[in-house]
Amino acid sequence: MNAGDYLSSGPRFAEGKVIERIESFRRRRPRLLDDHVTLAHGAGGKASAALVDAVFMEAFRNPALESLGDSAVLTLPGGERIAMSTDSFVVQPRRFPGGSIGRLAIHGTCNDLAMAGAVPAWISAAFVLEEGFAIAELKEVVADMADAAAEADVHVVTGDTKVVPKGAADGMFVTTTGAGVIPAGRALSADSVRTGDKLLLSGSMGDHGMAVMLARGDLAIEADIHSDTACLSPLVELLLTAAPSTRWLRDATRGGVGTVCNELAQACGLGVVLDEQRLPVQPMVNGACELLGIDPLYVANEGKFVAVVAPEEAEAGLAALRSHPLGVDAAEVGEIVTEPAESVVLRTGFGGTRMVDMLVGDPLPRIC
Amino acid sequence: MNAGDYLSSGPRFAEGKVIERIESFRRRRPRLLDDHVTLAHGAGGKASAALVDAVFMEAFRNPALESLGDSAVLTLPGGERIAMSTDSFVVQPRRFPGGSIGRLAIHGTCNDLAMAGAVPAWISAAFVLEEGFAIAELKEVVADMADAAAEADVHVVTGDTKVVPKGAADGMFVTTTGAGVIPAGRALSADSVRTGDKLLLSGSMGDHGMAVMLARGDLAIEADIHSDTACLSPLVELLLTAAPSTRWLRDATRGGVGTVCNELAQACGLGVVLDEQRLPVQPMVNGACELLGIDPLYVANEGKFVAVVAPEEAEAGLAALRSHPLGVDAAEVGEIVTEPAESVVLRTGFGGTRMVDMLVGDPLPRIC
Repeated sequence: MNAGDYLSSGPRFAEGKVIERIESFRRRRPRLLDDHVTLAHGAGGKASAALVDAVFMEAFRNPALESLGDSAVLTLPGGERIAMSTDSFVVQPRRFPGGSIGRLAIHGTCNDLAMAGAVPAWISAAFVLEEGFAIAELKEVVADMADAAAEADVHVVTGDTKVVPKGAADGMFVTTTGAGVIPAGRALSADSVRTGDKLLLSGSMGDHGMAVMLARGDLAIEADIHSDTACLSPLVELLLTAAPSTRWLRDATRGGVGTVCNELAQACGLGVVLDEQRLPVQPMVNGACELLGIDPLYVANEGKFVAVVAPEEAEAGLAALRSHPLGVDAAEVGEIVTEPAESVVLRTGFGGTRMVDMLVGDPLPRIC
Repeated sequence: MNAGDYLSSGPRFAEGKVIERIESFRRRRPRLLDDHVTLAHGAGGKASAALVDAVFMEAFRNPALESLGDSAVLTLPGGERIAMSTDSFVVQPRRFPGGSIGRLAIHGTCNDLAMAGAVPAWISAAFVLEEGFAIAELKEVVADMADAAAEADVHVVTGDTKVVPKGAADGMFVTTTGAGVIPAGRALSADSVRTGDKLLLSGSMGDHGMAVMLARGDLAIEADIHSDTACLSPLVELLLTAAPSTRWLRDATRGGVGTVCNELAQACGLGVVLDEQRLPVQPMVNGACELLGIDPLYVANEGKFVAVVAPEEAEAGLAALRSHPLGVDAAEVGEIVTEPAESVVLRTGFGGTRMVDMLVGDPLPRIC
């Protein structure tokens, strides 16, 4: 989700405080100047944030919109809290090394729930199909979803199917929505981030985006790059056990680690410093990014997240991440600073620094 | 939702019983013989049911699949029950007399929750937009959603936006997913339907389908027909207060009242008898249907539901429905019989009877 989302956190705030925070947040966010939707509006970067603010926040403004997190956090009458999250999947091609639209549709929604501290449990699946779509491919996609759901221990409990005439959609689009219970006592929020907190990244950057890009075959590059699509919930549970003061989590999907760190900086009002030399990138992905002139900081991941942890728990948190197969390349990649506020700075390998902005434009459309 | 959906009800059944019921249900359901998706697979009738059984039930089969209801009923660890429901909206044109894709997207999902006895509370909204879509129209759609949500007392708490290249989608598709709490003690289920129970219909048939059909302008018919799109939750609450033994509810969307009654008959293993002369149809809608050779029993509604009520509560239930502006045309339209089992029979105005099958084909594509 990230900047492509517009949303949420439990409707249990003083409304005045929410509006004030939204206003302060919006002052720093880009403005919508377009008359028509462009691919950049779906890329998870600056244009997405502008669209979300101008169209969705404006219309749906309510106390549940405060955190712009990955999920809405909802409090039931009895006091139990659930997280709810939705994503549409339009990736092209629908099958690529390491994954498929079906696996993405389960993993993406489970991960958004996990980032809110919830344990993913229930998934709905809505399909928009183009007339003439092969039933055999539909069965394959659904089988992938069923496998991914079983691995993630979630149940697909309801769904919908619409068919549009030939030419009115490109094959299939899938929208999954998930819900899960948040164990009592968990309170992940950008509000709790403090100067001196450490940033952990659960693994290497850019694998998913590059895998899909190469799978399209438009580029004269051959490289053995696999999508990292995975359900991150087990990794999150390990981290929260080892580092129970963890402040904030976000999976680095569209817009990449660079955009996620900007969202964090804006949301907590502090600065983020990243160490370039500590950012894990696989050599193949790095090479492909260099050839294409794309910074891996902005390439989508589907199985990686950024965590802000208390400094005294950083070591234990990192060890917990590395103890799981999905987190073997986890690293401490930066820290929270007071100035420059609401900004992200990269310490380069040459000892210099440069500002890291949100993603601008859309280098890789239809990546998820 | 109806037959275009696949499923659910809380994961609290003995698994053996569930599988047995599914098997028995499936023996009566049509088989999927197609190699490619056709418009009929999205129409909510026989082909939809076949697709759901062969593709979705087969892959996702789990104890939560039992009721094939409008929503999944989920039990939280603390015992509270929530309903969850999803629908994609692809209606063309996006604005029509009486409504728009935005209003439908809120009403449709609220209604699916209400049919499970839940009080709709939270909605997620996921948009797939075509590159070049006018921001002004997007703002109109979102404003309609915000208005409809405010009227229905629900909050849009999370969302997602994807953009696909020009030509890869027809303008916009919206997927909403809803959640709401089911008050303790409510247990609506086809299992509780008994011979002698009465069928109530909350108002006239076919208004939505005919309004959208005429709004396309393909037909040389001009008639002042408005969609009935509305949030039915207040009407359901009135009915459940007046007729607390109510057995089963279903909104008659795609596939119409005829298909919904067939789903009821299959699910409860009994027969449904409808009285043709009691079925409310507005004269304009009737006229348009006659000109087009379409039976209003199969035309989609977006603000009407079928209720099965205990015979001793039928009068009070009907009075409750008629006390609300959305239910002024409500009528008792039939009853539950033992034979012919799993079938629907229409008593015609001439004193004869005819079988009413599920919808076959798709007379009105992209109706919601």
